[in-house]
Amino acid sequence: MRNLDENTITDAVLARHANATDARLKDIVTSLVRHLHAFAREVNLTEAEWEAGIRFLTEVGHMTDARRQEFILLSDTLGLSMLVTAMAHRKPEGCTEATVFGPFFVDDAPAYDNGGDVANGAQGEPCFVSGVVRGSRGEPVAGARIEVWQADAAGFYDVQYSDVENHRARGVLHSLPDGRYHFRSIVAEPYPIPHDGPVGRMLDALGRHPWRPAHLHFMITAPGYERLVTHVFREGDRYLDSDAVFGVRSSLIAPWHHHASGTAPDGTVMATPFSTLEFDFVLNRSS
Amino acid sequence: MRNLDENTITDAVLARHANATDARLKDIVTSLVRHLHAFAREVNLTEAEWEAGIRFLTEVGHMTDARRQEFILLSDTLGLSMLVTAMAHRKPEGCTEATVFGPFFVDDAPAYDNGGDVANGAQGEPCFVSGVVRGSRGEPVAGARIEVWQADAAGFYDVQYSDVENHRARGVLHSLPDGRYHFRSIVAEPYPIPHDGPVGRMLDALGRHPWRPAHLHFMITAPGYERLVTHVFREGDRYLDSDAVFGVRSSLIAPWHHHASGTAPDGTVMATPFSTLEFDFVLNRSS
Ligand SMILES: [Fe+2]
Ligand SMILES: [Fe+2]
Repeated sequence: MRNLDENTITDAVLARHANATDARLKDIVTSLVRHLHAFAREVNLTEAEWEAGIRFLTEVGHMTDARRQEFILLSDTLGLSMLVTAMAHRKPEGCTEATVFGPFFVDDAPAYDNGGDVANGAQGEPCFVSGVVRGSRGEPVAGARIEVWQADAAGFYDVQYSDVENHRARGVLHSLPDGRYHFRSIVAEPYPIPHDGPVGRMLDALGRHPWRPAHLHFMITAPGYERLVTHVFREGDRYLDSDAVFGVRSSLIAPWHHHASGTAPDGTVMATPFSTLEFDFVLNRSS
Repeated sequence: MRNLDENTITDAVLARHANATDARLKDIVTSLVRHLHAFAREVNLTEAEWEAGIRFLTEVGHMTDARRQEFILLSDTLGLSMLVTAMAHRKPEGCTEATVFGPFFVDDAPAYDNGGDVANGAQGEPCFVSGVVRGSRGEPVAGARIEVWQADAAGFYDVQYSDVENHRARGVLHSLPDGRYHFRSIVAEPYPIPHDGPVGRMLDALGRHPWRPAHLHFMITAPGYERLVTHVFREGDRYLDSDAVFGVRSSLIAPWHHHASGTAPDGTVMATPFSTLEFDFVLNRSS
């Protein structure tokens, strides 16, 4: 312990945790220390680079507040969030895949009946969304709680505007007895993740853009089923192959059909252009 | 890019950096992403554990300000700082070894002549420190800039007190024409690193204490020589084998000799108990 060098220090750090009582914490920290040291050794990290890393993390910490979570953006853009999501949701073939949660969820989204307009004033072309919630054996799931949130035509979520009390383009509804759901909203547009902070500068330095392809967020829960957190991505979006947070999966891409005017699926007569999207979800049974 | 799973995502993230223009940054991020993902896979990191990690880093960020650098404490306690120091200062046999810089250095330490009392009112038993600064071929180094800083009898650095304008137990002096230096200070005592934050809670959870063995910090610079940042540790200290930041090296441990009263090495007649420390430094030639 008194002659640590660059080769012996890793085992010395791990030996210090011999008395840790939480076995899982000990396992996690052991792996973390090994990989952190292996990284520093592999790149022969210099003192100046270490200082730059400390400065970067400090800036990420100072950028983070109740409305902005820069550490989640960092995890998302390094692919860690999607990796953790994928490991947590290994499902049977046929179940709707999960993707990243993202930083724009809020706890108090307003409730709507089927057919309601969750846009609630958000700007964008009207879009009628419908589909069925089923279980993995094909059974319709009645009364599933469906939460949806999305960006507006300008690429912003309601919580990114200064008036956050009136939620727009987000809401909660429940599937009907036959598993069907339908609501009105607006067409989702691509948007850049917040990139005016250290993570944005990191993306710049790595030659990366901050854009995400257009998507709707869904969180669906029902008794007896595993919670599903996912997106539906808009077919044809230019960012499908370069999502800044690596959330795209082929099975989650669907077409938005454009209509010049006419009768929407729910019977609404539209004098202006509108779009429609149909997407069915398959929930995994909880174990 | 549209069917990423837990196995393919790492290469997908790395492929995204194909156009990075800074080759060194690209190498560092490549290694970092590989090890970060390998860590998450190895422990099968859960979503709840990922969230706990995000919360922990957020707390570390919010604890950090101009006077408290919690990310450096985190790096220090995980052994990363000592690893980077060791890699940056591979030296020929016989040169004084380097150790961690620590968070208590300040830029504007006051100047002293040889023989001065750098304690400047700091509490503790008087200690007379002396030695020689040499180069690696044995040549004395005249005019070397020697900066020293240390904790007081209560285990605190001056900057941890509210009145930071009057620096105590820190100072700058220069070696004499024969390479010798000598100054008066106080006896260094062991101290805990600041542990009232998230890093302190981490140490607790891992069954670790936050203490460092008693030491003097030295930073020595001279034209033609590599900068030396090191400590001199106090022989017999109970924490020498469990330094919270892994900074101890056998070659940096020296005896503090205690004297009941009498004449100090610089001729001062002491009616009260005092200590003496003699330590020679050997600088590596700069390349
Ligand atoms: Fe989103
Ligand atoms: Fe110290």
